[in-house]
Amino acid sequence: MSEQARRGRVTIPTDVDVVPETLELLKRWGADAIRDCDGTDYPDALKGVDAKVYSTYYTTRKDNAWAEENPDEVQQCYIMTGFHTAGEGALSIPLMQGVSPELMEPNTRDDIKRWWEVVDRTAGTVVPPADWRYDAAAAQVVLDRPAAFHEYTVSFLAYLIWDPVHMYNAVTNGWTDFEHQITFDVRQPKTHAYTMERLRKFIDDHPYVDVIRYTTFFHQFTLVFDELRREKYVDWYGYSASVSPYILERFEREVGYPFRPEYIIDQGYYNNQYRVPSREFLDFQAFQRREVAKLAREMVDITHEKGKEAMMFLGDHWIGTEPFLPEFQTIGLDAVVGSVGNGSTLRLISDIPGVAYTEGRFLPYFFPDTFHEGGDPVREAKENWVTARRAILRSPIDRIGYGGYLKLACRFPDFIDYVERVCNEFRELYANIRGATPYCVGRVAVLNCWGKMRSWGCHMVHHALYQKQNYSYAGVIEALSGAPFDVVFLSFDDLRNDPHALEGASVLLNVGDGDTAHTGGAVWEDPAVAAAVRRFIWNGGGFIGVGEPSGHQYQGHYLQLATALGVEKETGFTLGYDKYNWEEHPDHFILADCTHPVDFGEGKKSIYALEGTEILVQREKEVQMAVHSFGAGRCVYLSGLPYSFENSRVLYRSILWASHSEDRLHRWFSSNCNVEVHAYVKSGKYCVVNNTYEPQSTTVYRGDGSSFTLDLGANEIKWYEFPSESLE
Amino acid sequence: MSEQARRGRVTIPTDVDVVPETLELLKRWGADAIRDCDGTDYPDALKGVDAKVYSTYYTTRKDNAWAEENPDEVQQCYIMTGFHTAGEGALSIPLMQGVSPELMEPNTRDDIKRWWEVVDRTAGTVVPPADWRYDAAAAQVVLDRPAAFHEYTVSFLAYLIWDPVHMYNAVTNGWTDFEHQITFDVRQPKTHAYTMERLRKFIDDHPYVDVIRYTTFFHQFTLVFDELRREKYVDWYGYSASVSPYILERFEREVGYPFRPEYIIDQGYYNNQYRVPSREFLDFQAFQRREVAKLAREMVDITHEKGKEAMMFLGDHWIGTEPFLPEFQTIGLDAVVGSVGNGSTLRLISDIPGVAYTEGRFLPYFFPDTFHEGGDPVREAKENWVTARRAILRSPIDRIGYGGYLKLACRFPDFIDYVERVCNEFRELYANIRGATPYCVGRVAVLNCWGKMRSWGCHMVHHALYQKQNYSYAGVIEALSGAPFDVVFLSFDDLRNDPHALEGASVLLNVGDGDTAHTGGAVWEDPAVAAAVRRFIWNGGGFIGVGEPSGHQYQGHYLQLATALGVEKETGFTLGYDKYNWEEHPDHFILADCTHPVDFGEGKKSIYALEGTEILVQREKEVQMAVHSFGAGRCVYLSGLPYSFENSRVLYRSILWASHSEDRLHRWFSSNCNVEVHAYVKSGKYCVVNNTYEPQSTTVYRGDGSSFTLDLGANEIKWYEFPSESLE
Repeated sequence: MSEQARRGRVTIPTDVDVVPETLELLKRWGADAIRDCDGTDYPDALKGVDAKVYSTYYTTRKDNAWAEENPDEVQQCYIMTGFHTAGEGALSIPLMQGVSPELMEPNTRDDIKRWWEVVDRTAGTVVPPADWRYDAAAAQVVLDRPAAFHEYTVSFLAYLIWDPVHMYNAVTNGWTDFEHQITFDVRQPKTHAYTMERLRKFIDDHPYVDVIRYTTFFHQFTLVFDELRREKYVDWYGYSASVSPYILERFEREVGYPFRPEYIIDQGYYNNQYRVPSREFLDFQAFQRREVAKLAREMVDITHEKGKEAMMFLGDHWIGTEPFLPEFQTIGLDAVVGSVGNGSTLRLISDIPGVAYTEGRFLPYFFPDTFHEGGDPVREAKENWVTARRAILRSPIDRIGYGGYLKLACRFPDFIDYVERVCNEFRELYANIRGATPYCVGRVAVLNCWGKMRSWGCHMVHHALYQKQNYSYAGVIEALSGAPFDVVFLSFDDLRNDPHALEGASVLLNVGDGDTAHTGGAVWEDPAVAAAVRRFIWNGGGFIGVGEPSGHQYQGHYLQLATALGVEKETGFTLGYDKYNWEEHPDHFILADCTHPVDFGEGKKSIYALEGTEILVQREKEVQMAVHSFGAGRCVYLSGLPYSFENSRVLYRSILWASHSEDRLHRWFSSNCNVEVHAYVKSGKYCVVNNTYEPQSTTVYRGDGSSFTLDLGANEIKWYEFPSESLE
Repeated sequence: MSEQARRGRVTIPTDVDVVPETLELLKRWGADAIRDCDGTDYPDALKGVDAKVYSTYYTTRKDNAWAEENPDEVQQCYIMTGFHTAGEGALSIPLMQGVSPELMEPNTRDDIKRWWEVVDRTAGTVVPPADWRYDAAAAQVVLDRPAAFHEYTVSFLAYLIWDPVHMYNAVTNGWTDFEHQITFDVRQPKTHAYTMERLRKFIDDHPYVDVIRYTTFFHQFTLVFDELRREKYVDWYGYSASVSPYILERFEREVGYPFRPEYIIDQGYYNNQYRVPSREFLDFQAFQRREVAKLAREMVDITHEKGKEAMMFLGDHWIGTEPFLPEFQTIGLDAVVGSVGNGSTLRLISDIPGVAYTEGRFLPYFFPDTFHEGGDPVREAKENWVTARRAILRSPIDRIGYGGYLKLACRFPDFIDYVERVCNEFRELYANIRGATPYCVGRVAVLNCWGKMRSWGCHMVHHALYQKQNYSYAGVIEALSGAPFDVVFLSFDDLRNDPHALEGASVLLNVGDGDTAHTGGAVWEDPAVAAAVRRFIWNGGGFIGVGEPSGHQYQGHYLQLATALGVEKETGFTLGYDKYNWEEHPDHFILADCTHPVDFGEGKKSIYALEGTEILVQREKEVQMAVHSFGAGRCVYLSGLPYSFENSRVLYRSILWASHSEDRLHRWFSSNCNVEVHAYVKSGKYCVVNNTYEPQSTTVYRGDGSSFTLDLGANEIKWYEFPSESLE
């Protein structure tokens, strides 16, 4: 094995109590970088080691002295109380009910009549500030004369008096006897100035450090705990903790209209990813991106000036950075590192443009929730690696790494062995594919309200966590993360603003429930959007709708693309129409590789086919899968598609069929859907990869359609060379 | 058996070829009335028989000579074409695609630019009349310069050149060699005048007839067939065939605003029962009720003047009569007869106020679809009778009857025997309960957009026919039709217009899918509605929500009563909120009689419980049943409740619990839910009735809580006397 194959591209964690183990692992895993973690310290003994040293840098915490001296610049968030119903008399609304008092404290320092908002949710109106008062002793807003039996909420600003991730780490690991780290707001003037000095000092004080790993910049994603220290609310994309009067006044000046707390509170939905975004929220995000980039740039410049690399952790305080949007590149970062939960999260990192390298932190994290007596970290590591590998083979990260307490991992020698193999395999495949664009059948565009901003992250609530209501949609994105397509993410605004937005795309995907940002909701009332999509299909484009694509009740349709898709949802409004089209066409091209009934996950109820539509699957007279031609184009409807190898194949075939590319099926293709083939023109190599934990046999098709049979061991990846002219 | 028990209250059909059989059945079934049917004639030999004679009178058909002489007064309907997508050039929309040309013919006699409407459904705008033209030869509307990739529809007026029920009867029975009966419009001046003369002549020509059975008055419910003579669209409540320029001009003058075809077309949904009704449609219905009542009154007056009774068939051309609204009583009818499909349809007839008697036409109709070699009419008759009997015991019709071809029924002697027993049983129970109000636990109000107008008929698309999307809701109404409650139907407008509307009600029910007229949709944005319902509950009222009660996305809730109900629907907007409340409480009062898992029918996905809610049933973390207190009131959530004996019990217990009446459980109660007990104070009797086809054992509780055990044969009903003071 070459030196390149044996060493490099791997980062490991360390701590003061695991120096020998660290040295051992540097060797066994071929690691060339060492990092610290939250709650660990970098050992003196390793300061001279032959590896890059990363140091986690907490931009907004780990300096309680500063935070306590400057309570006016502690981080703030907007939060809404629950709904409180007025009876006949006065109504008191306790602000902190259901919220951890360790985490937050109402901000009464700024003018509450300006920054708080009491809303009559029954009438949908703002209660005039004169009609409510604050009882500070009881921490309650009081309405003396509310409208009887109306519901009220209070939106208020609160200080984050304990950093939410620090709280999460402390609770998860059962820390005792420590100080709650208070978050301070680098965006505000005093802290801004102080932070730049603090950073310079930190770098000067840590000369052995090569890479400043920012965790992250300025604003924590929304993460709230309740009085029982249980997670109450989480949105990995949430902007509700990126606010302060200082910031909001600047926002007001820039956009030229008055700020309202409701722009952040959004009825208690906090503008989460399912919400069709309001213009004001999009304005706010854009403002934050510009401001965050400007300030982050200052820190990166200092880092570079001091001769260090600047790496950003994609997590924790990453809000406002939005790595897929142009402002991000003005920050000038060298690298991004992020946690890899699956293929989608891998590409959430590896597809970020404009950084010198990306690094994936693999699972399991060395925390006691996995690394305990009876735990099975090898199983978790295997699942994680095999799931991520598909995506790496499409778009490689440059490095892999691990985090947590190394001491815990060392108690599991099987785990150490397994990761050693993973490190070697990663280096091999990286060497084989680096810089080469993998073979793509065509371009697939995922169309939703967020577009590029939520590339790979659409259908994600809390970083790759399962949700019963979204796994049937997230599965499509996961399948795409390792599939031979050039995947782009388009917003409806892209369609509106750029008449050429759809050029080059073979197939459009619209995935999710109706009246959500994923499918568009009221956006479809804009004729420019509906007409642009219909034009694309009519002229020969493909369209794949999953769930309730274009779902929004308007002008005689629930599915606004019903006529193109050939299916509609029965909402009761069309029960009077007789439905005669129920015949299934199981012999369709798309279903040809299915060995058992298609798993649609949660599926959808009440979808029926229009006349002329070919139903592929219906269950109890509810259509789960259908195809329909519209002009020169083709549409596929799927009720859901959780991620599995067989469903990946269903999606692959759906895309091929929708784009009239059935004849390209047998190129760089494995007959067995547990196995995938990836080809790299530039490097003249291709690989065949077994995604399962069992041996597999398959027929492998090359780019010219020639084939051979192959047996693969569990998880095995095999590499082949080919003359590049044979690609097609 | 007394004469009263042996004879009377039964109507049978006849025809010229079954005179002896008719005489035989008059005796065996104790029938005291004979009727003709569509496609039969009354035999001369029976003109002197000792029985009332009903003659079906077709107000709007069976006079093609008149119809052909007056083509301008043929009945009309509004109909919408399908959705047609414009490409880059001109767009032609064929009017009659998908519609039977035997049934309809576009009305080009009246000004099409005034009465037709071409709608750009993508932009939601009306196409100016100058921008389209009609190609009469091709029967197409042509838009020369449509907006590319917009969808268009044409709403147009068409003549009903074949009466839809006549067409249905002809197709169902395979009639050949007959003339299509054209419908004429009695509302128009020439036909109006002619009709009154025609009626007088008819009565004079049929001196042996005692009862004119109007089938019905003027307007057919919406019933459309396609080119293959298949039913294309049906709405038993549809008003789309009650229009003509003559009528609509009068409507315009009365309401004082211009008419638009869209008021009837309603995006192709034709204002069906699921649609939250527009103000204009409600205005139109009110106008129709007044006009129909006025004109029907003229016919009833003639009938009475000629010494005959006037009976209305609740079906066919019944549109505009609305028997539960006040205008109906001004018609002055003697009787209403209608088809009985189940308990709900029984009460749709028996609860009509202000007529001397009501009659139920039982199933099966003597048509070849049931009465054929291998058919099982006894099974159908049994199901029909036992289902209807529950409702008769709450609110009796005064007569029962049958329809169709007697010849067919006579080929099934078992059927003749079974119906003989039914007739005797009906007379017995009628004698026992007549005039006595059955014991009620309390008043239950079903709250929706239609209120009284759709009493018992809410959740009905085509007269008692099964629909996958509504049986889980219709089951609630069916259960109520035979349950010991005083059931009223309230509209949201009742709540708005009458602050006392909820007085006297113990429990409110709101049943159906979100954003439908059944649950209210945008009506909940009216604070007066939301506050009135909350006030009712808060002050001690009960609320039972089934499906998506108060479902409409607004101000932070999908279920607008979420706070009261204690459950909410996950639409994706609240995925970020952690949900910890999943524990089931299977020992609740409501579930105490369940012998197996509750059948929620279609159920609901994605319902979760708020904190403090008691979940009774959740499946895969989707709440199907839960209870919650709100102020002094109690709420019950059910995801669906198809009709069954066990589910009737679940509903009974839910109502008792919601109204704090658990202590009233064991009054006039059967421990076995297949058996029911009904008590009649005034007549001092009670009965115990086995609703199943198998023998049953049960413990019967009297009004004072005393009990006894009882064995009942299949379908058996047993009558008991009690001193009336023992009721309570």
